[in-house]
Amino acid sequence: MRDFSADHRWLSINTATVRRQRGQDWPLLQILDACAARGIRAVSPWRDQVAAAGLAATARTLRAHGLELSGYCRGGLFTYSDDAGRQAARDDNRRALDEACELGAPCLVLVVGGLPGALAGAPAHKDIAAARAQVAEGIARLLADAHERAMPLAIEPLHPMYAADRACINTLEQALDLCDALDPARSGALGVALDVYHCWWDPKLAAMIERAGRERLLAYHVCDWRLPTRDLLEDRGMPGDGVIDLPRIRALVEAQGYAGYAEVEIFSSRDWWQRDGGETLDTCIERHRRCV
Amino acid sequence: MRDFSADHRWLSINTATVRRQRGQDWPLLQILDACAARGIRAVSPWRDQVAAAGLAATARTLRAHGLELSGYCRGGLFTYSDDAGRQAARDDNRRALDEACELGAPCLVLVVGGLPGALAGAPAHKDIAAARAQVAEGIARLLADAHERAMPLAIEPLHPMYAADRACINTLEQALDLCDALDPARSGALGVALDVYHCWWDPKLAAMIERAGRERLLAYHVCDWRLPTRDLLEDRGMPGDGVIDLPRIRALVEAQGYAGYAEVEIFSSRDWWQRDGGETLDTCIERHRRCV
Repeated sequence: MRDFSADHRWLSINTATVRRQRGQDWPLLQILDACAARGIRAVSPWRDQVAAAGLAATARTLRAHGLELSGYCRGGLFTYSDDAGRQAARDDNRRALDEACELGAPCLVLVVGGLPGALAGAPAHKDIAAARAQVAEGIARLLADAHERAMPLAIEPLHPMYAADRACINTLEQALDLCDALDPARSGALGVALDVYHCWWDPKLAAMIERAGRERLLAYHVCDWRLPTRDLLEDRGMPGDGVIDLPRIRALVEAQGYAGYAEVEIFSSRDWWQRDGGETLDTCIERHRRCV
Repeated sequence: MRDFSADHRWLSINTATVRRQRGQDWPLLQILDACAARGIRAVSPWRDQVAAAGLAATARTLRAHGLELSGYCRGGLFTYSDDAGRQAARDDNRRALDEACELGAPCLVLVVGGLPGALAGAPAHKDIAAARAQVAEGIARLLADAHERAMPLAIEPLHPMYAADRACINTLEQALDLCDALDPARSGALGVALDVYHCWWDPKLAAMIERAGRERLLAYHVCDWRLPTRDLLEDRGMPGDGVIDLPRIRALVEAQGYAGYAEVEIFSSRDWWQRDGGETLDTCIERHRRCV
């Protein structure tokens, strides 16, 4: 396993980690400046932040700083309740692919969607199997567009507590079953984004990381599971502040040949979003060296 | 599948559903009276409520009303950080078995415990595999005591969001693997308590219910998954108020020959615990007939 203690060359910052500090949006270009100033080599930006900063300006700033991407957040939301919804999802995912290409992302991360309408508070039905079938269909279609652009798709299984409203792919096994169905040749075009927050509890985690192998492990996200967890969405912990055995999981991932970034992705409305953004970034660096 | 619409003969009330109404503990014997007055035929009481009412008085009141049990809540909490903790857990679980026998329970429900110390806020370590090994050892030992008393043990897999602090058995598959390891003959002495709240999201749910079969399905619990869920522990929904396809899951369970109670278990500090207990019970009856 790589030694992270001496530097932070394999740290990436998911820009949601510092998206809104003390009630103010921190503009993406300023986040990129702050990362570069600290010797951080990679980021993973969110589409809404890129849209606010401008795609071309974001690409220019990334190049000027020599910043790499560890992923692009995010495509997906494949579930729909009518044909217009299906078409809108398809069009939006193609735009996400184009943006990922423009920014030089190594993959487009997919958060696949839950029951249609649920995220807005009005689920159209309760048939999660039907939602999962729409996700499979949506990824199959998007895969053709992704192939054309040589942009890998990384399915991110989300924690089961998000099954209803955010993503009905909830285990690594389920994501890998879908990968094997749609890309049996393990071409590199389809894989997973493994986030410890979503998967740390899984009794089959080690077996499924091994099954994924190098070809399917496209991104690795870290944070921590706080005790208590006070909010289902926005109470993720800084690495080291929770119960996840981060070195053990990274060892499993690296044993498969993964040699990319460890991307810190923290949604924390009560704690890390209440600090100065620079302090949050400095803490990410320190914890990357000591806890990841 | 049984038709529940005409009566509530297969409704059981988990007494935590009405444990504390409007800031006041509702004493167990009064809960039993209120259930019996409504023609409810079964309950599943919690040990702390039984202790407060007295074991003998509880048994007498159950008999006087002709109330059955659909389970007894709860044994488990097998994980420990020292020998004294292990012995204390063992002794306490034997007492739980004796109480279950005294009350005529059909099974002792097991919530197996998470990382040792985590429920009190101070996890002794982060090694969930070690915790799971302690659980397997604890259930193996308790099974001998349970055999002597002819009291079946029902492992309840809890939602993965409770993996750290409440139970490190988190899927039906994981629970069934343990059942098969400890009771390969499917003797009826070891099975699962299937609670829709914990398992509804599982992509392998149908397959694992089939694998469980009649011998392993010892209890069936219902409530609903609210959108949004505002608290990890105490925001369960009344059947019909969430996104779980309850009739579909009951059909799967009954297809295996399950013909027992549908036990309503709701922890709801913001809503159903804020009402008059009689209103909450009446709503359980109405939803049992219409939504379960």
